[in-house]
Amino acid sequence: MTVGIVGLGLIGGSLAKAFRKYTDHRVLGYDVNPTVTQYAQMTDCIDGVLDKTTIAECELVLLAVYPQATVDYLAEMADVIADGTVVIDCGGIKRSICDRCREIEKDHGWIFIGGHPMAGLHHSGLKYAKADLYVGASMILTPKNTDDIALLEKVTNWLRSIGFGSVTVTTPAQHDEIIAFTSQLAHVVSNAYVKSPRAKVHRGFSAGSYRDLTRVARLNEVMWTELFLENKDNLIQEIDHIIGSLQEYREALNDDDAVRLRALLKEGSDRKERIDSGDGEH
Amino acid sequence: MTVGIVGLGLIGGSLAKAFRKYTDHRVLGYDVNPTVTQYAQMTDCIDGVLDKTTIAECELVLLAVYPQATVDYLAEMADVIADGTVVIDCGGIKRSICDRCREIEKDHGWIFIGGHPMAGLHHSGLKYAKADLYVGASMILTPKNTDDIALLEKVTNWLRSIGFGSVTVTTPAQHDEIIAFTSQLAHVVSNAYVKSPRAKVHRGFSAGSYRDLTRVARLNEVMWTELFLENKDNLIQEIDHIIGSLQEYREALNDDDAVRLRALLKEGSDRKERIDSGDGEH
Repeated sequence: MTVGIVGLGLIGGSLAKAFRKYTDHRVLGYDVNPTVTQYAQMTDCIDGVLDKTTIAECELVLLAVYPQATVDYLAEMADVIADGTVVIDCGGIKRSICDRCREIEKDHGWIFIGGHPMAGLHHSGLKYAKADLYVGASMILTPKNTDDIALLEKVTNWLRSIGFGSVTVTTPAQHDEIIAFTSQLAHVVSNAYVKSPRAKVHRGFSAGSYRDLTRVARLNEVMWTELFLENKDNLIQEIDHIIGSLQEYREALNDDDAVRLRALLKEGSDRKERIDSGDGEH
Repeated sequence: MTVGIVGLGLIGGSLAKAFRKYTDHRVLGYDVNPTVTQYAQMTDCIDGVLDKTTIAECELVLLAVYPQATVDYLAEMADVIADGTVVIDCGGIKRSICDRCREIEKDHGWIFIGGHPMAGLHHSGLKYAKADLYVGASMILTPKNTDDIALLEKVTNWLRSIGFGSVTVTTPAQHDEIIAFTSQLAHVVSNAYVKSPRAKVHRGFSAGSYRDLTRVARLNEVMWTELFLENKDNLIQEIDHIIGSLQEYREALNDDDAVRLRALLKEGSDRKERIDSGDGEH
Protein backbone atom coordinates (compact mmCIF):
# COMPACT_ATOMS: atom_id res chain seq x y z
CA MET A 1 0.00 0.00 0.00
CA THR A 2 0.94 3.67 0.01
CA VAL A 3 1.49 5.52 3.30
CA GLY A 4 1.35 9.30 3.43
CA ILE A 5 3.22 11.16 6.14
CA VAL A 6 2.59 14.81 6.91
CA GLY A 7 5.37 16.55 8.80
CA LEU A 8 8.86 15.14 8.52
CA GLY A 9 10.24 16.10 11.92
CA LEU A 10 11.40 13.66 14.56
CA ILE A 11 8.07 11.82 14.77
CA GLY A 12 7.04 11.86 11.10
CA GLY A 13 10.60 11.33 9.89
CA SER A 14 10.96 8.30 12.15
CA LEU A 15 7.63 6.91 10.91
CA ALA A 16 8.84 7.32 7.32
CA LYS A 17 12.17 5.65 8.04
CA ALA A 18 10.45 2.83 9.92
CA PHE A 19 8.04 2.09 7.06
CA ARG A 20 10.97 2.20 4.63
CA LYS A 21 13.10 -0.07 6.77
CA TYR A 22 10.58 -2.65 7.97
CA THR A 23 7.92 -2.83 5.26
CA ASP A 24 7.52 -2.82 1.48
CA HIS A 25 4.95 -0.03 1.57
CA ARG A 26 5.46 3.01 -0.59
CA VAL A 27 6.11 6.07 1.58
CA LEU A 28 5.06 9.56 0.48
CA GLY A 29 6.01 12.51 2.63
CA TYR A 30 5.41 16.22 2.94
CA ASP A 31 6.88 18.89 5.15
CA VAL A 32 5.85 22.54 5.23
CA ASN A 33 9.53 23.35 4.76
CA PRO A 34 10.35 22.40 1.14
CA THR A 35 14.03 21.88 1.99
CA VAL A 36 13.07 19.20 4.50
CA THR A 37 10.84 17.41 1.99
CA GLN A 38 13.66 17.56 -0.55
CA TYR A 39 16.22 16.33 1.97
CA ALA A 40 13.90 13.43 2.91
CA GLN A 41 13.70 12.45 -0.75
CA MET A 42 17.44 12.74 -1.32
CA THR A 43 18.20 10.57 1.69
CA ASP A 44 15.60 7.95 0.77
CA CYS A 45 13.41 8.59 3.83
CA ILE A 46 10.48 8.80 1.45
CA ASP A 47 9.73 7.38 -1.97
CA GLY A 48 8.01 10.49 -3.21
CA VAL A 49 6.18 13.68 -2.33
CA LEU A 50 2.75 13.69 -0.73
CA ASP A 51 0.51 16.33 -2.33
CA LYS A 52 -3.12 17.01 -3.29
CA THR A 53 -2.87 14.45 -6.08
CA THR A 54 -0.81 11.65 -4.56
CA ILE A 55 -2.68 11.69 -1.24
CA ALA A 56 -5.58 10.01 -3.04
CA GLU A 57 -3.34 6.93 -3.44
CA CYS A 58 -2.76 6.54 0.32
CA GLU A 59 -4.46 3.85 2.34
CA LEU A 60 -2.96 5.32 5.51
CA VAL A 61 -2.18 8.96 6.26
CA LEU A 62 -0.19 9.88 9.38
CA LEU A 63 -0.25 13.47 10.58
CA ALA A 64 2.84 14.39 12.59
CA VAL A 65 2.49 18.14 12.89
CA TYR A 66 1.28 20.58 15.58
CA PRO A 67 -2.44 20.53 16.46
CA GLN A 68 -3.47 23.61 14.47
CA ALA A 69 -1.48 22.45 11.42
CA THR A 70 -3.13 19.02 11.72
CA VAL A 71 -6.59 20.55 11.55
CA ASP A 72 -5.67 22.93 8.72
CA TYR A 73 -4.08 20.18 6.64
CA LEU A 74 -7.00 17.82 7.10
CA ALA A 75 -9.53 20.53 6.21
CA GLU A 76 -7.59 21.30 3.05
CA MET A 77 -7.32 17.65 1.99
CA ALA A 78 -10.71 16.43 3.20
CA ASP A 79 -12.19 16.17 -0.28
CA VAL A 80 -9.25 14.41 -1.94
CA ILE A 81 -8.46 11.70 0.62
CA ALA A 82 -9.87 8.41 -0.66
CA ASP A 83 -12.80 6.64 0.90
CA GLY A 84 -11.67 4.01 3.40
CA THR A 85 -8.31 5.68 4.01
CA VAL A 86 -7.29 5.69 7.68
CA VAL A 87 -6.03 9.05 8.96
CA ILE A 88 -4.14 9.06 12.27
CA ASP A 89 -2.68 12.08 14.00
CA CYS A 90 0.26 11.89 16.42
CA GLY A 91 -0.50 14.76 18.78
CA GLY A 92 0.16 14.62 22.50
CA ILE A 93 -3.34 15.73 23.49
CA LYS A 94 -6.48 14.11 22.15
CA ARG A 95 -9.72 15.81 23.22
CA SER A 96 -9.65 19.01 21.17
CA ILE A 97 -7.88 17.48 18.17
CA CYS A 98 -10.32 14.59 17.96
CA ASP A 99 -13.31 16.92 18.25
CA ARG A 100 -12.02 19.12 15.47
CA CYS A 101 -10.88 16.33 13.16
CA ARG A 102 -14.13 14.40 13.58
CA GLU A 103 -15.97 17.53 12.61
CA ILE A 104 -14.00 17.63 9.35
CA GLU A 105 -14.45 13.87 8.88
CA LYS A 106 -18.25 14.23 8.67
CA ASP A 107 -19.68 13.57 5.21
CA HIS A 108 -16.40 12.01 4.08
CA GLY A 109 -15.55 8.38 3.49
CA TRP A 110 -12.17 8.32 5.22
CA ILE A 111 -11.76 7.40 8.88
CA PHE A 112 -10.03 9.57 11.47
CA ILE A 113 -8.38 7.94 14.52
CA GLY A 114 -6.63 9.92 17.22
CA GLY A 115 -3.13 8.61 17.89
CA HIS A 116 -0.27 9.26 20.29
CA PRO A 117 2.99 7.35 19.89
CA MET A 118 4.67 7.00 23.31
CA ALA A 119 8.17 7.66 22.09
CA GLY A 120 10.34 10.68 21.58
CA LEU A 121 13.63 12.37 22.11
CA HIS A 122 14.42 15.80 23.46
CA HIS A 123 15.85 16.62 20.05
CA SER A 124 13.56 17.49 17.19
CA GLY A 125 13.87 17.49 13.46
CA LEU A 126 14.46 15.01 10.65
CA LYS A 127 18.16 14.70 11.36
CA TYR A 128 17.39 12.96 14.68
CA ALA A 129 14.67 10.74 13.16
CA LYS A 130 15.43 7.05 13.30
CA ALA A 131 13.75 3.94 11.99
CA ASP A 132 13.89 2.29 15.42
CA LEU A 133 12.30 5.08 17.47
CA TYR A 134 9.10 3.07 17.93
CA VAL A 135 10.57 -0.35 18.58
CA GLY A 136 8.81 -1.71 21.66
CA ALA A 137 6.92 1.53 22.26
CA SER A 138 3.22 1.85 22.94
CA MET A 139 0.80 3.57 20.56
CA ILE A 140 -2.35 5.01 22.02
CA LEU A 141 -5.38 5.15 19.74
CA THR A 142 -8.63 7.00 20.34
CA PRO A 143 -10.99 5.77 17.60
CA LYS A 144 -14.56 7.02 17.36
CA ASN A 145 -15.86 3.45 17.42
CA THR A 146 -13.92 1.23 19.76
CA ASP A 147 -15.89 -1.79 18.56
CA ASP A 148 -14.77 -1.77 14.92
CA ILE A 149 -12.45 -4.70 15.56
CA ALA A 150 -11.54 -5.24 11.91
CA LEU A 151 -10.36 -1.64 11.59
CA LEU A 152 -8.40 -1.73 14.84
CA GLU A 153 -6.79 -5.00 13.87
CA LYS A 154 -5.70 -3.58 10.53
CA VAL A 155 -4.21 -0.47 12.19
CA THR A 156 -2.55 -2.54 14.91
CA ASN A 157 -0.88 -4.73 12.31
CA TRP A 158 0.46 -1.68 10.49
CA LEU A 159 1.82 -0.30 13.75
CA ARG A 160 3.37 -3.59 14.81
CA SER A 161 5.00 -3.91 11.41
CA ILE A 162 7.09 -0.79 12.13
CA GLY A 163 8.07 -1.92 15.62
CA PHE A 164 5.39 -0.76 18.04
CA GLY A 165 5.23 -3.16 20.96
CA SER A 166 1.65 -2.52 21.99
CA VAL A 167 -1.48 -0.61 21.07
CA THR A 168 -3.71 0.90 23.75
CA VAL A 169 -7.25 1.90 22.83
CA THR A 170 -8.95 4.52 24.97
CA THR A 171 -11.11 7.64 24.86
CA PRO A 172 -9.69 11.11 24.23
CA ALA A 173 -10.78 12.16 27.73
CA GLN A 174 -9.07 9.27 29.47
CA HIS A 175 -5.97 9.70 27.34
CA ASP A 176 -5.65 13.34 28.34
CA GLU A 177 -6.22 12.62 32.00
CA ILE A 178 -3.58 9.87 32.23
CA ILE A 179 -1.06 11.56 29.96
CA ALA A 180 -1.16 14.63 32.22
CA PHE A 181 0.27 12.36 34.89
CA THR A 182 2.62 10.06 32.98
CA SER A 183 4.14 12.54 30.58
CA GLN A 184 3.17 16.18 31.06
CA LEU A 185 3.76 16.29 34.82
CA ALA A 186 7.10 14.52 34.31
CA HIS A 187 8.24 17.27 31.97
CA VAL A 188 7.02 20.06 34.27
CA VAL A 189 8.67 18.54 37.36
CA SER A 190 11.92 17.81 35.56
CA ASN A 191 12.00 21.32 34.11
CA ALA A 192 11.30 22.80 37.56
CA TYR A 193 13.92 20.58 39.21
CA VAL A 194 16.91 22.17 37.51
CA LYS A 195 15.90 25.66 38.64
CA SER A 196 17.40 25.23 42.08
CA PRO A 197 20.38 27.54 42.69
CA ARG A 198 22.30 24.35 43.57
CA ALA A 199 21.81 23.00 40.04
CA LYS A 200 25.03 24.67 39.00
CA VAL A 201 27.43 22.63 41.09
CA HIS A 202 26.54 19.01 40.98
CA ARG A 203 29.41 17.25 39.23
CA GLY A 204 30.83 14.56 41.48
CA PHE A 205 27.79 14.90 43.72
CA SER A 206 25.28 13.06 41.64
CA ALA A 207 24.39 9.52 40.81
CA GLY A 208 21.49 8.07 38.84
CA SER A 209 18.72 9.77 40.76
CA TYR A 210 19.66 13.30 39.71
CA ARG A 211 20.25 12.20 36.13
CA ASP A 212 16.87 10.51 35.91
CA LEU A 213 14.91 13.33 37.52
CA THR A 214 16.32 15.92 35.13
CA ARG A 215 16.52 13.95 31.89
CA VAL A 216 13.44 15.49 30.30
CA ALA A 217 14.10 19.01 31.63
CA ARG A 218 15.38 19.91 28.18
CA LEU A 219 12.36 20.21 25.92
CA ASN A 220 10.76 22.03 23.00
CA GLU A 221 9.01 24.81 24.90
CA VAL A 222 6.85 25.86 21.94
CA MET A 223 5.36 22.41 21.47
CA TRP A 224 4.91 21.69 25.17
CA THR A 225 3.30 25.05 25.88
CA GLU A 226 0.64 24.25 23.29
CA LEU A 227 0.13 20.73 24.67
CA PHE A 228 0.01 21.89 28.30
CA LEU A 229 -2.53 24.62 27.63
CA GLU A 230 -4.76 22.21 25.71
CA ASN A 231 -4.79 19.98 28.78
CA LYS A 232 -4.66 22.58 31.50
CA ASP A 233 -7.53 21.16 33.55
CA ASN A 234 -5.81 17.79 33.99
CA LEU A 235 -2.30 19.16 34.29
CA ILE A 236 -3.21 21.73 36.94
CA GLN A 237 -4.80 18.93 38.95
CA GLU A 238 -1.56 16.91 38.76
CA ILE A 239 0.64 19.87 39.67
CA ASP A 240 -1.60 20.67 42.63
CA HIS A 241 -1.42 17.06 43.72
CA ILE A 242 2.36 16.83 43.74
CA ILE A 243 2.68 20.24 45.42
CA GLY A 244 0.33 18.98 48.13
CA SER A 245 2.39 15.82 48.58
CA LEU A 246 5.66 17.74 48.71
CA GLN A 247 4.19 20.03 51.36
CA GLU A 248 3.46 17.00 53.54
CA TYR A 249 7.12 15.91 53.58
CA ARG A 250 8.10 19.52 54.17
CA GLU A 251 5.86 19.77 57.22
CA ALA A 252 7.06 16.49 58.67
CA LEU A 253 10.67 17.64 58.24
CA ASN A 254 9.95 21.02 59.76
CA ASP A 255 8.24 19.39 62.75
CA ASP A 256 11.09 16.88 63.18
CA ASP A 257 8.34 14.29 62.93
CA ALA A 258 10.24 11.11 62.07
CA VAL A 259 7.18 8.88 62.45
CA ARG A 260 5.15 10.89 59.97
CA LEU A 261 8.06 11.28 57.53
CA ARG A 262 8.68 7.55 57.59
CA ALA A 263 4.97 6.89 56.97
CA LEU A 264 4.92 9.32 54.03
CA LEU A 265 7.97 7.71 52.46
CA LYS A 266 6.67 4.22 53.05
CA GLU A 267 3.36 5.13 51.44
CA GLY A 268 5.10 6.30 48.26
CA SER A 269 7.50 3.38 48.27
CA ASP A 270 4.70 0.81 48.72
CA ARG A 271 2.64 2.47 46.04
CA LYS A 272 5.53 2.34 43.57
CA GLU A 273 6.08 -1.31 44.40
CA ARG A 274 2.39 -2.10 43.84
CA ILE A 275 2.33 -0.27 40.51
CA ASP A 276 5.47 -2.01 39.27
CA SER A 277 4.17 -5.40 40.26
CA GLY A 278 0.96 -4.71 38.35
CA ASP A 279 -1.51 -4.67 41.26
CA GLY A 280 -2.30 -1.08 40.54
CA GLU A 281 -3.40 -1.81 36.99
CA HIS A 282 -6.89 -1.89 35.59
CA MET B 1 47.24 -4.51 53.44
CA THR B 2 44.23 -5.46 55.52
CA VAL B 3 40.89 -3.68 54.99
CA GLY B 4 38.21 -3.76 57.68
CA ILE B 5 34.58 -3.32 56.69
CA VAL B 6 31.87 -2.61 59.25
CA GLY B 7 28.35 -3.36 58.10
CA LEU B 8 27.88 -5.95 55.36
CA GLY B 9 24.74 -4.61 53.70
CA LEU B 10 24.52 -3.39 50.14
CA ILE B 11 27.22 -0.75 50.54
CA GLY B 12 29.64 -2.60 52.84
CA GLY B 13 29.05 -5.92 51.12
CA SER B 14 29.80 -4.38 47.74
CA LEU B 15 32.98 -2.79 49.12
CA ALA B 16 34.07 -6.18 50.44
CA LYS B 17 33.33 -7.92 47.15
CA ALA B 18 35.11 -5.17 45.20
CA PHE B 19 38.28 -5.43 47.32
CA ARG B 20 38.16 -9.21 46.95
CA LYS B 21 37.64 -9.05 43.19
CA TYR B 22 39.96 -6.22 42.20
CA THR B 23 42.78 -6.23 44.77
CA ASP B 24 45.00 -8.59 46.73
CA HIS B 25 44.15 -6.93 50.04
CA ARG B 26 42.93 -9.02 52.92
CA VAL B 27 39.30 -8.19 53.69
CA LEU B 28 37.90 -8.48 57.23
CA GLY B 29 34.22 -7.86 57.80
CA TYR B 30 31.71 -7.47 60.58
CA ASP B 31 27.95 -7.19 60.64
CA VAL B 32 25.80 -6.66 63.72
CA ASN B 33 23.79 -9.64 62.53
CA PRO B 34 26.04 -12.71 63.12
CA THR B 35 24.26 -14.68 60.39
CA VAL B 36 25.24 -12.04 57.84
CA THR B 37 28.88 -12.10 58.95
CA GLN B 38 28.85 -15.88 58.74
CA TYR B 39 27.19 -15.84 55.32
CA ALA B 40 29.79 -13.32 54.08
CA GLN B 41 32.54 -15.67 55.19
CA MET B 42 30.93 -18.74 53.68
CA THR B 43 30.48 -17.00 50.33
CA ASP B 44 34.04 -15.62 50.30
CA CYS B 45 32.95 -11.97 50.50
CA ILE B 46 35.43 -11.58 53.35
CA ASP B 47 38.64 -13.36 54.34
CA GLY B 48 37.89 -13.22 58.03
CA VAL B 49 36.00 -11.56 60.84
CA LEU B 50 36.69 -8.01 61.95
CA ASP B 51 36.72 -7.71 65.73
CA LYS B 52 38.41 -5.89 68.60
CA THR B 53 41.63 -7.83 67.99
CA THR B 54 41.83 -7.99 64.21
CA ILE B 55 40.87 -4.35 63.67
CA ALA B 56 44.37 -3.45 64.89
CA GLU B 57 45.73 -5.08 61.72
CA CYS B 58 43.72 -2.84 59.39
CA GLU B 59 45.32 0.00 57.46
CA LEU B 60 41.89 1.05 56.20
CA VAL B 61 38.55 0.75 58.00
CA LEU B 62 35.32 1.46 56.11
CA LEU B 63 32.15 2.09 58.10
CA ALA B 64 29.00 1.23 56.17
CA VAL B 65 26.34 1.42 58.87
CA TYR B 66 23.72 3.98 59.96
CA PRO B 67 24.98 7.24 61.52
CA GLN B 68 24.36 6.33 65.17
CA ALA B 69 25.91 2.88 64.71
CA THR B 70 28.93 4.52 63.04
CA VAL B 71 29.52 6.74 66.06
CA ASP B 72 28.94 3.92 68.54
CA TYR B 73 31.29 1.54 66.74
CA LEU B 74 34.04 4.12 66.43
CA ALA B 75 33.77 5.07 70.11
CA GLU B 76 34.03 1.42 71.08
CA MET B 77 37.06 0.76 68.86
CA ALA B 78 38.84 4.11 69.25
CA ASP B 79 41.57 2.71 71.50
CA VAL B 80 42.34 -0.39 69.44
CA ILE B 81 42.51 1.06 65.93
CA ALA B 82 46.20 1.38 64.98
CA ASP B 83 47.96 4.71 64.58
CA GLY B 84 47.95 5.84 60.96
CA THR B 85 44.90 3.77 60.04
CA VAL B 86 42.46 5.61 57.80
CA VAL B 87 38.80 5.37 58.86
CA ILE B 88 36.16 6.36 56.32
CA ASP B 89 32.41 6.32 56.84
CA CYS B 90 29.88 5.94 54.02
CA GLY B 91 26.92 7.92 55.34
CA GLY B 92 24.71 10.06 53.15
CA ILE B 93 25.01 13.17 55.35
CA LYS B 94 28.32 14.58 56.50
CA ARG B 95 28.03 17.49 58.94
CA SER B 96 26.84 15.77 62.10
CA ILE B 97 28.71 12.52 61.50
CA CYS B 98 32.02 14.33 60.86
CA ASP B 99 31.59 16.49 63.94
CA ARG B 100 30.93 13.46 66.13
CA CYS B 101 33.63 11.22 64.64
CA ARG B 102 36.23 13.98 64.81
CA GLU B 103 35.39 14.37 68.46
CA ILE B 104 36.18 10.67 68.99
CA GLU B 105 39.30 10.94 66.80
CA LYS B 106 40.89 13.47 69.20
CA ASP B 107 43.88 12.09 71.14
CA HIS B 108 44.11 9.10 68.79
CA GLY B 109 46.61 8.33 66.06
CA TRP B 110 44.16 7.17 63.39
CA ILE B 111 42.64 9.52 60.81
CA PHE B 112 38.91 9.94 60.19
CA ILE B 113 37.68 11.02 56.76
CA GLY B 114 34.01 11.53 55.95
CA GLY B 115 32.95 9.63 52.84
CA HIS B 116 29.90 9.24 50.64
CA PRO B 117 29.97 6.78 47.74
CA MET B 118 27.61 8.01 45.01
CA ALA B 119 26.19 4.63 44.16
CA GLY B 120 23.34 2.51 45.37
CA LEU B 121 20.33 0.43 44.53
CA HIS B 122 16.82 0.56 45.90
CA HIS B 123 17.42 -2.90 47.29
CA SER B 124 19.39 -3.33 50.46
CA GLY B 125 21.26 -6.20 52.04
CA LEU B 126 24.24 -8.39 51.29
CA LYS B 127 22.39 -10.50 48.75
CA TYR B 128 22.19 -7.50 46.41
CA ALA B 129 25.83 -6.48 47.00
CA LYS B 130 28.01 -6.66 43.93
CA ALA B 131 31.69 -6.13 43.25
CA ASP B 132 30.96 -3.71 40.41
CA LEU B 133 28.63 -1.35 42.28
CA TYR B 134 31.25 1.39 42.36
CA VAL B 135 32.65 1.06 38.86
CA GLY B 136 32.76 4.56 37.41
CA ALA B 137 31.02 6.09 40.43
CA SER B 138 32.11 9.16 42.32
CA MET B 139 33.30 9.07 45.94
CA ILE B 140 32.92 12.24 47.96
CA LEU B 141 35.46 12.76 50.74
CA THR B 142 35.32 15.36 53.49
CA PRO B 143 38.74 15.19 55.19
CA LYS B 144 39.62 17.48 58.09
CA ASN B 145 42.72 18.68 56.24
CA THR B 146 42.15 19.11 52.53
CA ASP B 147 45.83 19.90 52.04
CA ASP B 148 47.25 16.54 53.15
CA ILE B 149 47.93 15.57 49.54
CA ALA B 150 49.84 12.40 50.38
CA LEU B 151 46.92 11.07 52.44
CA LEU B 152 44.33 11.97 49.81
CA GLU B 153 46.43 10.40 47.10
CA LYS B 154 46.72 7.19 49.08
CA VAL B 155 42.96 7.05 49.68
CA THR B 156 42.20 7.95 46.06
CA ASN B 157 44.38 5.09 44.84
CA TRP B 158 42.59 2.65 47.12
CA LEU B 159 39.22 3.87 45.83
CA ARG B 160 40.28 3.76 42.20
CA SER B 161 41.58 0.23 42.69
CA ILE B 162 38.03 -0.96 43.42
CA GLY B 163 36.54 0.87 40.47
CA PHE B 164 35.61 4.38 41.61
CA GLY B 165 35.81 6.71 38.62
CA SER B 166 36.43 9.92 40.52
CA VAL B 167 37.01 11.37 43.97
CA THR B 168 35.53 14.72 44.97
CA VAL B 169 36.95 16.50 48.02
CA THR B 170 34.72 19.01 49.76
CA THR B 171 33.56 20.24 53.17
CA PRO B 172 30.79 18.53 55.14
CA ALA B 173 28.66 21.70 54.83
CA GLN B 174 29.00 21.92 51.06
CA HIS B 175 28.41 18.19 50.72
CA ASP B 176 25.15 18.40 52.63
CA GLU B 177 23.96 21.42 50.71
CA ILE B 178 24.57 19.91 47.27
CA ILE B 179 23.42 16.41 48.16
CA ALA B 180 20.09 17.85 49.33
CA PHE B 181 19.58 18.87 45.73
CA THR B 182 21.17 16.05 43.74
CA SER B 183 20.00 13.09 45.79
CA GLN B 184 17.61 13.86 48.64
CA LEU B 185 15.23 16.06 46.64
CA ALA B 186 15.23 13.47 43.84
CA HIS B 187 14.00 10.82 46.26
CA VAL B 188 11.36 13.09 47.80
CA VAL B 189 10.02 14.22 44.42
CA SER B 190 10.00 10.70 43.00
CA ASN B 191 8.26 9.36 46.11
CA ALA B 192 5.68 12.17 45.91
CA TYR B 193 5.16 11.65 42.18
CA VAL B 194 3.58 8.23 42.49
CA LYS B 195 0.97 9.48 44.96
CA SER B 196 -1.27 10.86 42.23
CA PRO B 197 -4.60 9.03 41.96
CA ARG B 198 -3.69 8.53 38.28
CA ALA B 199 -0.63 6.49 39.26
CA LYS B 200 -2.73 3.35 39.18
CA VAL B 201 -3.52 3.26 35.48
CA HIS B 202 -0.50 4.12 33.48
CA ARG B 203 0.40 1.00 31.51
CA GLY B 204 0.42 1.76 27.80
CA PHE B 205 0.38 5.46 28.62
CA SER B 206 3.95 5.91 29.67
CA ALA B 207 7.32 6.22 28.04
CA GLY B 208 10.73 6.97 29.48
CA SER B 209 9.77 10.16 31.28
CA TYR B 210 7.42 8.48 33.76
CA ARG B 211 9.84 5.61 34.34
CA ASP B 212 12.72 7.99 35.04
CA LEU B 213 10.76 10.29 37.33
CA THR B 214 9.56 7.43 39.50
CA ARG B 215 12.60 5.14 39.52
CA VAL B 216 13.77 6.09 43.01
CA ALA B 217 10.27 6.31 44.51
CA ARG B 218 10.90 2.92 46.06
CA LEU B 219 13.28 3.43 48.94
CA ASN B 220 14.31 2.39 52.42
CA GLU B 221 12.12 4.75 54.44
CA VAL B 222 13.97 4.14 57.72
CA MET B 223 17.36 5.13 56.32
CA TRP B 224 16.08 8.08 54.32
CA THR B 225 14.06 9.47 57.22
CA GLU B 226 17.23 9.59 59.30
CA LEU B 227 19.23 11.18 56.45
CA PHE B 228 16.52 13.72 55.62
CA LEU B 229 16.10 14.85 59.22
CA GLU B 230 19.86 15.27 59.62
CA ASN B 231 19.82 17.60 56.64
CA LYS B 232 16.45 19.23 57.12
CA ASP B 233 17.68 22.81 56.71
CA ASN B 234 19.03 22.16 53.22
CA LEU B 235 16.28 19.78 52.16
CA ILE B 236 13.46 22.10 53.22
CA GLN B 237 15.09 24.83 51.16
CA GLU B 238 15.13 22.56 48.10
CA ILE B 239 11.53 21.42 48.57
CA ASP B 240 10.41 25.03 48.96
CA HIS B 241 12.29 25.94 45.82
CA ILE B 242 10.70 23.30 43.63
CA ILE B 243 7.24 23.99 45.06
CA GLY B 244 7.78 27.66 44.19
CA SER B 245 8.82 26.74 40.66
CA LEU B 246 5.88 24.39 40.18
CA GLN B 247 3.51 27.12 41.34
CA GLU B 248 4.82 29.39 38.59
CA TYR B 249 3.88 26.92 35.84
CA ARG B 250 0.55 26.38 37.57
CA GLU B 251 -0.24 30.09 37.52
CA ALA B 252 0.77 30.52 33.89
CA LEU B 253 -1.48 27.57 32.97
CA ASN B 254 -4.36 28.90 35.01
CA ASP B 255 -4.01 32.34 33.38
CA ASP B 256 -3.77 30.79 29.88
CA ASP B 257 -0.55 32.76 29.66
CA ALA B 258 1.30 31.03 26.80
CA VAL B 259 4.07 33.63 26.71
CA ARG B 260 4.91 33.16 30.37
CA LEU B 261 4.60 29.36 30.22
CA ARG B 262 6.92 29.23 27.24
CA ALA B 263 9.43 31.46 29.06
CA LEU B 264 9.31 29.26 32.17
CA LEU B 265 9.88 26.10 30.13
CA LYS B 266 12.65 27.70 28.10
CA GLU B 267 14.39 28.86 31.28
CA GLY B 268 14.46 25.29 32.63
CA SER B 269 15.42 23.83 29.30
CA ASP B 270 18.28 26.30 28.77
CA ARG B 271 19.51 25.75 32.30
CA LYS B 272 19.59 21.99 31.83
CA GLU B 273 21.48 22.45 28.56
CA ARG B 274 24.04 24.73 30.24
CA ILE B 275 24.55 22.30 33.12
CA ASP B 276 25.00 19.34 30.79
CA SER B 277 27.47 21.18 28.62
CA GLY B 278 29.47 22.03 31.72
CA ASP B 279 29.02 25.82 31.70
CA GLY B 280 27.24 25.63 35.01
CA GLU B 281 30.17 23.98 36.76
CA HIS B 282 32.58 25.55 39.19
